[in-house]
Amino acid sequence: MAMGCKYGSHRVLEPRGVLPQPAAKISNDMSTIYDNEILVDVTALNIDSASFTQIEEEAGHDLARIEAKILAIVGEKGKMQNPVTGSGGMFIGQVAKVGSALADRGLKAGDKIASLVSLSLTPLKIEKILKIHADIDRVEIKGQAILFESGLYAKLPEDMTESLALAALDVAGAPAQAAKLVKPGQSVLILGAGGKSGMLVAYEAMKRVGPTGHVVGNVYLAEDKQTLDELGLCHEVVVADATRPVDFLSAVLQANGGREYDIVVNCVNVQNTEMSSILPCRQEGTVYFFSMATHFGKAALGAEGVGKDVTMIVGNGYTKDHAEITLWELRENPKLRRLFEERYV
Amino acid sequence: MAMGCKYGSHRVLEPRGVLPQPAAKISNDMSTIYDNEILVDVTALNIDSASFTQIEEEAGHDLARIEAKILAIVGEKGKMQNPVTGSGGMFIGQVAKVGSALADRGLKAGDKIASLVSLSLTPLKIEKILKIHADIDRVEIKGQAILFESGLYAKLPEDMTESLALAALDVAGAPAQAAKLVKPGQSVLILGAGGKSGMLVAYEAMKRVGPTGHVVGNVYLAEDKQTLDELGLCHEVVVADATRPVDFLSAVLQANGGREYDIVVNCVNVQNTEMSSILPCRQEGTVYFFSMATHFGKAALGAEGVGKDVTMIVGNGYTKDHAEITLWELRENPKLRRLFEERYV
Repeated sequence: MAMGCKYGSHRVLEPRGVLPQPAAKISNDMSTIYDNEILVDVTALNIDSASFTQIEEEAGHDLARIEAKILAIVGEKGKMQNPVTGSGGMFIGQVAKVGSALADRGLKAGDKIASLVSLSLTPLKIEKILKIHADIDRVEIKGQAILFESGLYAKLPEDMTESLALAALDVAGAPAQAAKLVKPGQSVLILGAGGKSGMLVAYEAMKRVGPTGHVVGNVYLAEDKQTLDELGLCHEVVVADATRPVDFLSAVLQANGGREYDIVVNCVNVQNTEMSSILPCRQEGTVYFFSMATHFGKAALGAEGVGKDVTMIVGNGYTKDHAEITLWELRENPKLRRLFEERYV
Repeated sequence: MAMGCKYGSHRVLEPRGVLPQPAAKISNDMSTIYDNEILVDVTALNIDSASFTQIEEEAGHDLARIEAKILAIVGEKGKMQNPVTGSGGMFIGQVAKVGSALADRGLKAGDKIASLVSLSLTPLKIEKILKIHADIDRVEIKGQAILFESGLYAKLPEDMTESLALAALDVAGAPAQAAKLVKPGQSVLILGAGGKSGMLVAYEAMKRVGPTGHVVGNVYLAEDKQTLDELGLCHEVVVADATRPVDFLSAVLQANGGREYDIVVNCVNVQNTEMSSILPCRQEGTVYFFSMATHFGKAALGAEGVGKDVTMIVGNGYTKDHAEITLWELRENPKLRRLFEERYV
């Protein structure tokens, strides 16, 4: 065949000249594989939480309508990118073919891998949806996907099940960024600490702040507080609604001795939680937005509107060694691993 | 009187529990001033450009109808927030009363100030509209406004006209953030370097990188390259379309000796320039998004999609001393000041 663009722009159908992620439509023609592409037989999709929630609500929680919606999106766009949230997710599957230019990757047909780039830029063809696991945002399929030369992936580890590895790798950016961001002695607030990324971030933050730091988790449901308390994932857990910033602020400040936080990490998957992330942060502190429901303008104008000189970071799903850091958490913390196995597998 | 909420939620009338900006109606009762509020006699409103254009069109460019529309909005909402665009603007006026809890601000009755928080969250009462300057979106009024404890403002400088100061203060966040971000010896790429914020950022970046750094400005129009070259605002200026990342990348890398940049600052005001900001940035470099046209998801997933471990920051319109840093640039650089006077006053 021939070499494609390292970033996959050779598969963009419209509009021309953009990269696959912002493109409205990309080619999912699997009959032509470029020399720097990897073809994968996909067995399951892990849909991004914000995306799945939106689809689920639009479909009135009806599985047949969720299935139809997913097929319609992939049919139209050539990729599983939610048109409302813009987000994707990841896949797992078996390598079917490695392009000749990527022969030095140490990857061969039959290897089980998980994609670590978003479905929002990944050429995907669904032959059939086999089963939808709405509780864990997972969709079993028969289909194929393409990884570009720049596309990240991880070989699935031998010491845990596929499902468990996938559940963790899905949000691998979050704990790995927390590991790099959080320093000893800091106070850290985690919005949405009861979710998958929230728990991984909380565990990592607890390790990093050490004995003199303070990690507060926020959850929406009282039952999530109980889980976090039992697992010891935070110093304190506050039940509060992050979409109501005034009440939220007083609740989370109380949990930190009335002081604002050094670092706030947003892992909530609903809209309008920007102000609840910004207000509790101290001047010159850091707000890390992992939530894909974050609105850029609401964050930018919101901080200015309340005079907060905080560094607001766009959550990057990739950072060096993110897969290893995340899988290591599950190896290190048997309780967390057990919870992940019970809840997300 | 009593202390109000630092962020002004005590003046929110409906819906309860939100902050003044998203509120539908806030109290503009000026007979009751809280101890942590500042009352200002307002002389002029600078209506946000998107808002003024919408009102102007709805009113068929009829000044009497524009006046009626503005009075109706403020009468209904207690603030000048355009119900269609959601945006506000800023005001200038003279301080009438400083609440007792803010006595340490160094502010006294009679001081001329410009608000640096949006009119979309500022309690405002208009007694009379004196004159509408439709060409510069300015409305002279007799009225009063409230600044909350967290509300930002700047004393208007003595050494420049109100209009010049306003033109610069409008984008004050950008150059001040650049001043804090850019270090000696770094390479810096500025997308949209020909615009108001882009020029201020470029000038600041040139100062900060020193003799061993390299500042490259990107513009869309060849005439802007000429202006930047004449003013010496960058080491090099590249004419390229930031919405076409593949071509863009090769053009800007060439201007930096083939190397990726330490810092990329996005000041472009069109959509779909996220990837042109991310791709030219080196691993572990920083991308600062000032453009309000930035899409959170496109940035987050875009970086992950191309395996870029870059820190992406949401441009914050406020940072400590931002007004002073920005006005100082105009004092320091007479050529830049002259251009601002010609172009934006």
